[in-house]
Amino acid sequence: MTYYPSSILDLINKISKLPGIGEKTAERLTLHILRSPRKDAQELAQSIVKVKDTVRLCKKCYGLSDSDLCKICGDSTRDASILCVVEQPADMVAVEKSGAFRGMYHILSGALSPMNGIGPDDIRINELISKIEGRQVNEVVLATGTNVEGEATAVYIAQCLEKYPVKVTRIASGVPMGGDLKYVDQVTLKKAMETRHGV
Amino acid sequence: MTYYPSSILDLINKISKLPGIGEKTAERLTLHILRSPRKDAQELAQSIVKVKDTVRLCKKCYGLSDSDLCKICGDSTRDASILCVVEQPADMVAVEKSGAFRGMYHILSGALSPMNGIGPDDIRINELISKIEGRQVNEVVLATGTNVEGEATAVYIAQCLEKYPVKVTRIASGVPMGGDLKYVDQVTLKKAMETRHGV
Repeated sequence: MTYYPSSILDLINKISKLPGIGEKTAERLTLHILRSPRKDAQELAQSIVKVKDTVRLCKKCYGLSDSDLCKICGDSTRDASILCVVEQPADMVAVEKSGAFRGMYHILSGALSPMNGIGPDDIRINELISKIEGRQVNEVVLATGTNVEGEATAVYIAQCLEKYPVKVTRIASGVPMGGDLKYVDQVTLKKAMETRHGV
Repeated sequence: MTYYPSSILDLINKISKLPGIGEKTAERLTLHILRSPRKDAQELAQSIVKVKDTVRLCKKCYGLSDSDLCKICGDSTRDASILCVVEQPADMVAVEKSGAFRGMYHILSGALSPMNGIGPDDIRINELISKIEGRQVNEVVLATGTNVEGEATAVYIAQCLEKYPVKVTRIASGVPMGGDLKYVDQVTLKKAMETRHGV
């Protein structure tokens, strides 16, 4: 890689540190930036700095926002009586994309993981309980991941909320839509069978 | 995508315009930049601006450089009597990586393509001829692409150089190393057969 001038090597090096970007792709992107108009490169650089400067956490759901309240929490047409609990902002976006939920969100910012030293006080479970105490919430939908940490987090939150007059539900696990049964793993199929429902 | 604040959407949009980066990857990279330390994001932005500000063309080979002469043209240990002609700076880097060439380069900055209105005066063929006239060059290796444009460019340059006392060679085409003959396309295999050589 010493064939390139140092400023090019420096940019290749920085880009290749981004997740999923190898050295070959970083080289290609760097050469693209070199070829593109100076204005485009400057705007890209400005956007990177701006995203760090302006984005903060929504005070209500702890999602990403560029003001005190995010677009969803500030939307009075949404149903505030139903709360969807997710691990990360990207999970919230995934639920939003499905178009199947018109309530509010609560972002934990992680999942319980004793192996990694992440306990109930390290994710926003107390903030969730305060919400349930303070507001008129009818239902809490637990949409944490379906891996060990996500399942443990869902079970823990369900236990914490037992004493409150709120319905606690968990998103369904099972065979993906459009999927062929023979390609579905055993654990998922077992779960799909156990949680079968009337049609 | 309206679930994100506008500064995030703006960065996703700019990153997804880079070649080979789709909207999903752009989203992932943007969220990574958001999570990473402010210093890293600022340094990435600075590197992007710096690469546009400092990189220019080498006055001798027209490759990428951050000074008047690139590292290769400024290296007195390299053989100035043999000149490798390539289309783009990235091609020069590919030849360098092979480690099989210790001469100098000449970068055309394109290939002849009448369909796209690119004629001999649009790529640096006159500059190549001036080099041959002005300097002691014994051999010119034509390492343009093996597509129609690259082949046409090689043939054209070979004709231009006929009247000069310089050996003109073309890099070999054929079966890729480690390749299985049954997976090689017909045109490549035909070329490999036609240009067979003694062992």
